[in-house]
Amino acid sequence: MASSFSMTRVIEFCETDMAGIAHFSNFYRWMEQAEHAFFRSLGLTIANEQVDGTIIGFPRVSASCRFVSPAKFEDELTVQLQVRRIGVKSLTYDAIFSINDRLVAKGALKTACCQFRPGESLQSIVIPDLYLSKIEEYSEFSIKTAE
Amino acid sequence: MASSFSMTRVIEFCETDMAGIAHFSNFYRWMEQAEHAFFRSLGLTIANEQVDGTIIGFPRVSASCRFVSPAKFEDELTVQLQVRRIGVKSLTYDAIFSINDRLVAKGALKTACCQFRPGESLQSIVIPDLYLSKIEEYSEFSIKTAE
Amino acid sequence: MASSFSMTRVIEFCETDMAGIAHFSNFYRWMEQAEHAFFRSLGLTIANEQVDGTIIGFPRVSASCRFVSPAKFEDELTVQLQVRRIGVKSLTYDAIFSINDRLVAKGALKTACCQFRPGESLQSIVIPDLYLSKIEEYSEFSIKTAE
Amino acid sequence: MASSFSMTRVIEFCETDMAGIAHFSNFYRWMEQAEHAFFRSLGLTIANEQVDGTIIGFPRVSASCRFVSPAKFEDELTVQLQVRRIGVKSLTYDAIFSINDRLVAKGALKTACCQFRPGESLQSIVIPDLYLSKIEEYSEFSIKTAE
Repeated sequence: MASSFSMTRVIEFCETDMAGIAHFSNFYRWMEQAEHAFFRSLGLTIANEQVDGTIIGFPRVSASCRFVSPAKFEDELTVQLQVRRIGVKSLTYDAIFSINDRLVAKGALKTACCQFRPGESLQSIVIPDLYLSKIEEYSEFSIKTAE
Repeated sequence: MASSFSMTRVIEFCETDMAGIAHFSNFYRWMEQAEHAFFRSLGLTIANEQVDGTIIGFPRVSASCRFVSPAKFEDELTVQLQVRRIGVKSLTYDAIFSINDRLVAKGALKTACCQFRPGESLQSIVIPDLYLSKIEEYSEFSIKTAE
Repeated sequence: MASSFSMTRVIEFCETDMAGIAHFSNFYRWMEQAEHAFFRSLGLTIANEQVDGTIIGFPRVSASCRFVSPAKFEDELTVQLQVRRIGVKSLTYDAIFSINDRLVAKGALKTACCQFRPGESLQSIVIPDLYLSKIEEYSEFSIKTAE
Repeated sequence: MASSFSMTRVIEFCETDMAGIAHFSNFYRWMEQAEHAFFRSLGLTIANEQVDGTIIGFPRVSASCRFVSPAKFEDELTVQLQVRRIGVKSLTYDAIFSINDRLVAKGALKTACCQFRPGESLQSIVIPDLYLSKIEEYSEFSIKTAE
């Protein structure tokens, strides 16, 4: 079984809405925050400036969530992130949101490795080995397939 | 062909991120804002308090977006919302995000009709006729199917 | 009397919190959005890229709000922005937030004119004449004082 | 000297803007999050539902920030919160935002103790002894003055 990265955080007051629960748009932010924390845990950063000023990043291709039960103010929410697929140029994750083992939501996130300079347009690139080796080692996924 | 509801708004500075483009989490908010504006255009409201204090609302079941091209500060973004399916207890929408006819993103949103009192748990209900008649009339969809 | 710039917007669901009212942090965003809309109304932009890649902008020096009465979902909120002081390098605004003539909040915002290149640090500069002439003309303030 | 409560957090990608720094509106959210974490550290909660359904809370009266230096993605930001004044019905805090001892911003927050039922209007009340004793003990401020 693949290992997964896990992050826990408290639901903040400003993240609730008038229905008394965390607003659904926050789940996409939390999924991204877990992804970034996962990168940090590997000694990587999601927005990596190179010596020549180029930035290597992982813009979102798509993101989805299905909402199962509510999260409330001061609940401790755990986001479990799992690398589902390592592509040549993309990474796909599953996310499970839970509070004390109660399932709150399920998410999916696909990112593409890109390089760009500030103000210029994105260019999709093959994921550099530095990232690949650390992510593969972590996730014990090693299926690198053409896309 | 089904008609669609359309909303245009300016991308705000606070909606951009350090990559110089609108942060992806905003698209889920804009999709919801278009849904609520659509309800208002029909004389409805998404959070409707009844005489007895019960609230009829449409919590999100799931929401997804696929991102095609970037949106930048002060771009005029159009969200086209289309009712794709009218269920007995749920509504499903497609959303197309564009800037001057350039496709920016495609989204999908499923909501469930629920009633609740503040502090109590949600209860899924059949969409009241008041909503149904107006939404069906607008969308010229009339296929009400069991789910 | 000085003229003021005015912007009206609907309070969105995602801007409410579990107390059932617009979360206070939104007022700072709305004050900024009114400032940016004010700039656009003068044919200016708050983040102006020059031919050489330098950007002229107006980062916030300070911002404050005092909250008087609540704003709720689907309320139409008006933000009235007034230039209170035109400095050599800074602009100071007052903001009045109201709903149907009911006072909701009062804010103040001070910005400093700066130039920077992406990734470099900010440098405070004298407000260029292009901005000054349009803002002075609009606001009928013409007192430019040392600071 | 009065003690202060301290909270450290990482600046998230979604909190940055196109200027490459944390958007100023986040500081007001972080100040509130520090306040709520401070309450939790005392065994209190900022939104306390009573047996009869009444909620005791601390809505914002005013909040201000002065911005000194930028905060960037993945910076570790510390918010130091200090109770500056304990009123009969209000609490006033100072906040200092820093990154590795570099001053980033200074804030101030005034809250009023209120009770309300969902959907009803707020009513200002004397701060209950339960709160007062814990906050006074913590902050070694004991000057309770009329306001």
